This record gives sequence, C-alpha cells and structure tokens, in this order.
Amino acid sequence: MIDLEQLHDCYIKTSSKIVLLVVDGLGGLPHPDTGKSELETAHLPNLDAMARESACGLTIPVLPGVAPGSGPGHLALFGYDPLRYIIGRGALEALGIEVELRPGDVAARGNFCTVDGEGKLVDRRAGRIPTEFSAPLCHRLDTIELPGVQVDVFPVQDYRFVLRLRGEGLSEAITETDPQINGVPALTVKPIEAAGEKTANLVNDFVAQAGRLLAEEERGNMVLLRGWAQLPSLPPMRDIYRIDPAGIAAYPMYRGLATVANMRIVPTGKTFSDEVDTLHEEFANHDFFFIHYKPADAAGEDGDFGAKVKTLEDLDPLIPRIRELDPDVFMVAGDHSTPAIMAAHSWHPVPFMLHSKLTRGEGIPSFDERACGTGSIGTIPATQIMLLAMSHSGKLTKFGP
Amino acid sequence: MIDLEQLHDCYIKTSSKIVLLVVDGLGGLPHPDTGKSELETAHLPNLDAMARESACGLTIPVLPGVAPGSGPGHLALFGYDPLRYIIGRGALEALGIEVELRPGDVAARGNFCTVDGEGKLVDRRAGRIPTEFSAPLCHRLDTIELPGVQVDVFPVQDYRFVLRLRGEGLSEAITETDPQINGVPALTVKPIEAAGEKTANLVNDFVAQAGRLLAEEERGNMVLLRGWAQLPSLPPMRDIYRIDPAGIAAYPMYRGLATVANMRIVPTGKTFSDEVDTLHEEFANHDFFFIHYKPADAAGEDGDFGAKVKTLEDLDPLIPRIRELDPDVFMVAGDHSTPAIMAAHSWHPVPFMLHSKLTRGEGIPSFDERACGTGSIGTIPATQIMLLAMSHSGKLTKFGP
Repeated sequence: MIDLEQLHDCYIKTSSKIVLLVVDGLGGLPHPDTGKSELETAHLPNLDAMARESACGLTIPVLPGVAPGSGPGHLALFGYDPLRYIIGRGALEALGIEVELRPGDVAARGNFCTVDGEGKLVDRRAGRIPTEFSAPLCHRLDTIELPGVQVDVFPVQDYRFVLRLRGEGLSEAITETDPQINGVPALTVKPIEAAGEKTANLVNDFVAQAGRLLAEEERGNMVLLRGWAQLPSLPPMRDIYRIDPAGIAAYPMYRGLATVANMRIVPTGKTFSDEVDTLHEEFANHDFFFIHYKPADAAGEDGDFGAKVKTLEDLDPLIPRIRELDPDVFMVAGDHSTPAIMAAHSWHPVPFMLHSKLTRGEGIPSFDERACGTGSIGTIPATQIMLLAMSHSGKLTKFGP
Repeated sequence: MIDLEQLHDCYIKTSSKIVLLVVDGLGGLPHPDTGKSELETAHLPNLDAMARESACGLTIPVLPGVAPGSGPGHLALFGYDPLRYIIGRGALEALGIEVELRPGDVAARGNFCTVDGEGKLVDRRAGRIPTEFSAPLCHRLDTIELPGVQVDVFPVQDYRFVLRLRGEGLSEAITETDPQINGVPALTVKPIEAAGEKTANLVNDFVAQAGRLLAEEERGNMVLLRGWAQLPSLPPMRDIYRIDPAGIAAYPMYRGLATVANMRIVPTGKTFSDEVDTLHEEFANHDFFFIHYKPADAAGEDGDFGAKVKTLEDLDPLIPRIRELDPDVFMVAGDHSTPAIMAAHSWHPVPFMLHSKLTRGEGIPSFDERACGTGSIGTIPATQIMLLAMSHSGKLTKFGP
C-alpha cells in the first residue's frame, strides 16, 4: 500500500503518535487436548481489556495459505507489498548479524566446506566447524582484494559467514556455487543476466583466492556461496507517510528490517522491558514507533505450547506501560502465526487490534484468533494496517474531492 | 469490479428491478456519553425490520483507513475502482453546479482575487465577494475568446466560479495559478506533460484577457485557477451491466456523478420524498435506480450528533414507500461514514444491506454498524455490491463452464 501513488498527497505531517507492537509469531492453533490456542489459553487481562476498546481483525501476511519469513512478514506490516519488495537470503543473513547494507551492495550467505585433492566436495559444511575455528578463517578471507570492489567477510555462526561486496555496477543476478551434493566440485559462478557478468567474474576470482588462502586447512579448505542479494529499493516510510519513524528491537534481524524501511534505529537493551524503557525515553522524539517482541515466535518454533503461552503472559503486564504513554494509535500485530503444534511459521491469519479514540469499541471480549475474527476490521492484508494507523491518527486525509 | 472483463459475458438483460439507496455519510461512531452510534441511537423500525430479512455487511469505500470524497465514494458503489477512475476537483466542482462535461472538456475551479498595481496578490479570495457581485464578473469573463476553443465561465457561489474549456487536444496536465500566499503574483501556467502545452498557452491567454476585463474592479480584479480536470473515461454501466440505469438525486453533485456513470438523470424535486415520488413514477421505465439521501452527511459534517440521528429517523418512514414497489433487489448503502464526533468524512466501514427473495434472511436485529458487522456479507469493498445486486436480480449468470 505504501506505493499507492494515488494516496501520496493525502498524507500530512502531524504531531500525533503511532505505536506498532509486533509480537513475532503471534497467531497460533488450538492445542489438541484443550481445543484452545496459545492466546486463548494464556491469561492476558491487559491485552483482553484493550481488545474490548479496540477495533479488531485478522491480518493476512502475504496471501491466504502463504507462510512468510521474517522479511516479508515485517515488510507487509510496514505497508510494503511483500510479493514486490523481496529481501534476498544473503541480504537477510547480513541484516541478521547487523552488517550494514547500502543500496548497490551485494551480499551472499557463505559457508566453509571441505574438498578433496581434486577439488571435489567431501563435506558441504566442513564438519560444522564451530565459530571459534571459522572466525579466524573469515578474517583471513577478509584480506582478499578484488579490483575496484571492497570485500568484507563477517562470521555468522559455526561454518556460516556473510560475504559483502561493495562497489559500482554490482549485481545479484549471478548463479550460486553450491552444487547441493558431495562428490562434485563447487560450481563456477555465471551471470543470470548480462548485468551480472562483472560480478560473476569478481566472485570467481574471490573463490580462487579463498581456495589458496584455505588450502592448508583440514576442515574448511574451500567456500560455498549462495543467496546473492541486493537490498530492494523501497520507498522510504519517512518520505511517503511523512512520519519520523523509530525502530526498537532487541534482536539485530529486526533492527535490520527497520533499517530497510528507513526507520531510525534506537539503541536498546536485551529484553522487551528494555525496549519499553527505550520507547518511554524516545517517545517525544518520533511520531511512529515499531517495537518488536521476539519470544513468542521462538517458543512457537520450538514447538513448546506451554512456553509460548508463557511468553504471551510475560508480555501482557508490559502493555499498560505502553498504554500509559497514551499514543494516538496503538496497534498490536504479528508478522505471521507460529503455532506451537506446527513448530514453524504458518499462513494462518494473525490477530490484530488497533486502539484509538476513533474506533467503534466493538466489545470483542478477548485478544485471540477467534474473537478478533469477529471484529469490524475483518480479515485484511497486513499491508493495509498502516493505512488504518495513519487515518486513525489524523495523518491520512480525505482521498478525492 | 465493473471493469472485470472476465465477467462481461455473464451479464444478461432481464426485466428485474434494482434499487440502490445511497444514504450519504451513513456510518458513524459512538457518542462518548452513550457508547451508541447515530444509527444505534436512532429509532428506525422500518430499516431494522428490513435488516432482519436482508443479507447484511459492511462496505469499505476505497481501502481500510482511506476516507473518500463524494466522487470516489459513489463511483465505488457503482462498481468503479475509485483508485483507478479519478474525478478531479475541477470536474467535480462543475458537476456540483450541473455544468455539462463531455469527454475531452477541461474544467477548473476558479476564484476572483485582488491584486495590487504590480500584480501582486493582496487578497486571494477578493474579500469573499458575494454571488451578486461575482456573477456579473463571470458573465464578463464568459465573453473571452480563445482560438479554436469554446470558453465558458459559470458562477458557483461567492467568489468562486467554474471555467470550462471545450475543444480538440485539450489536457488537464497543466499547473495551477494559485501561489497559495499573498504578496506574490499569480503563477504562470505550465504544462506538466508535453500534451499540456497547448492548454497551458490558452489558459495564460485567458488569464491575461481576464486581467484586462477586470482591471477596474476594486475587489476581484484578477482570477486564480486550479484543480484542472477532465472526466475520467468510464466504461458505461449501461453497456457493461446491460441495464438501463436512472439517477434520482435532489442535489446537483450527485446527479453529476450519476451522469459520469452514464445513468439517465430523472428530474425530481428538492426533497427525498420528491425523489421517492419520482421513483414511483419512473419505476416502469428503468431496471436500475440510484436514489440519493443527502441530509445524513450534512448533519454529520456539521458535527451535530442529534441532527444526524434525526435525519436517519426522517428517512425511515420513507423506506416502506420504496419497498411497496417490490423491487427484486433493494440495497441500502452509504458512500462513506460521516461520524458526527469527527464532523468529517471517515474511513470506517459502512453498514450495508441487500434485500431480495434470494437472501438468507439472517435475522440481524438492527441496521447499524455493529449488527451489520456480524452479517453474512462480511466486510467487503464497496465496488463489489453491484455484483451482489446483479446476481440477486438474476442479471449476472454463471461464470465459467
């Protein structure tokens, strides 16, 4: 929706405040023993009280049936069509370890592997060497020089790293080197489009140099590179919505996603309580706040129903601390569902509520999947919640005469 | 939806009758003292009885969060995507005073202003001179001649007028002359695209001539022109839906909007009761009727909650007079919400009901925002109600083999 040109003249700058709380993996599915979802099981007096005064609904992250990763799930909540603005794997991996990506940079997911004397792959993950072994190898690769391009290699974890190339005329349109099986050599990189030829040549040069620098290693004497990605060119939230957005997230990945949307990242601590403290400190300085709650998704991905219930109950007492700031619009949303019984991200529509003085207060009794499904907002694409936030805060004016 | 080519062959001509009653600004918000909206507060025995027998729902005029003007609000109800078919300000102003616009005509909102000896603006509204002063000035401007183009100037009210240019090769893609501040001269018109060059030159000629004709006036010795607009090219309802549509509206603006959608305008009186009389008289002559009720919006825009309740209660006794015609489909809809507590158009989903022999009669107890929100139609884009009207009246047949 952010790229809907017809509305651009309708956005106005005001001093009103919007808070978007994203509960990662918010939605769930009923436990087979009780028939109740995580949200329905949890004791959530503050979220439930807020639901009674809010406009409620369900959001579809991408399309019905499509389970998103963190990238598309968040971009949609910020108003970007996740089928149009795609963050590639290499770029997301870089954002996840807080590697800065500028427009034009190309990033790849790299990993160390082990090859035999003929260059054939023996172990595509180099025996899963731990970070303490791989980090020095990364520093060695970081010394590689390529003509006209800045080369940086960043350790991720165990055998994984990020390669970032920075320079003029680079392209993500090149093939990967991982053949996906052992017993064959790594693949030579080829351009997918003509624009990729220069980058393909540079990367093949990088791989050759890496092979020489790593030749003496018993495990990890070669690299594999995949997920080539540049940042998508996103219309900045700041320019389109005429807001001054701040991102508050304890986890680097979500700070990275906020950066992609052109928010200012506000330093914060390790916990959600720290994030709420930061929200209080920064509340006067911005008019839009994205604040991220991670634990619900982590517990869901672990398949731990009880733990996910607990994360929601841990969140609930902090809701009044956000509400006491009295934002003009306070939205509670999720980037996707992560039902504990699936132990994975899912496509199920995600509970959503928007609190403002201009909602009808429809008396939805609790904040959960079934109750929100009866709300006045209905089931809408996640890309539309920013329109609701903007209008309820007086920042989106009448369309058309 | 009207431009959904895949359905064009599914529309068939029948003798069945559809009535679309548009209650302008229908939806509202709860009064802070009672927690009840205007519709919930009003005593509406006839609308409530109809709701019990109807399929109910809520309509979204444009998109969630987007408050529409009258133009997009009505076009959506007629089936036109309001983000695609846009009626510019000049065109809507012309329609509002019943100035005929043909495809290709360019219209602008004009106003008299006062400039000093150096041509700098002293008063952008010429002291808000009343219509009795401005109408003769309009007649004077109406004598201006431009090469190859018919020039017409129509008084609107007070210092405002409409300029209409008619001729070959005109374009709305030109800049405005109003600098929005005093102390500087009016702006010269420039083309926004190459296609606008001819029109820009003509308009600058018009402004120069206007300056000479008005030079002796103390107040209103110059004009400002803005909101350049041509009619969008709309697929006619008549052709697409294979209906013979009639528009019945006491207010010129809504007759204009009906004209844009290619309805026949049926002359009527000043009140909604007159409109219902007209509906009775014309009922045999058409198979689709758009009938417009204005007072609810006016009261809402005034911010007068009690007055808006009253307008709804005034409407209610006239519902049986429409139902006694026994139309095959009778829809009650709104172009947008106009909550009295906002004193403005809003984005809130609008109550909607459709009565026909083929609805389920779901027992919705009353015609209001919350009750309609629980109806079987759900919350749908306003552009889809014509599909429901067509199918429930037997005019939209099976899609696909």
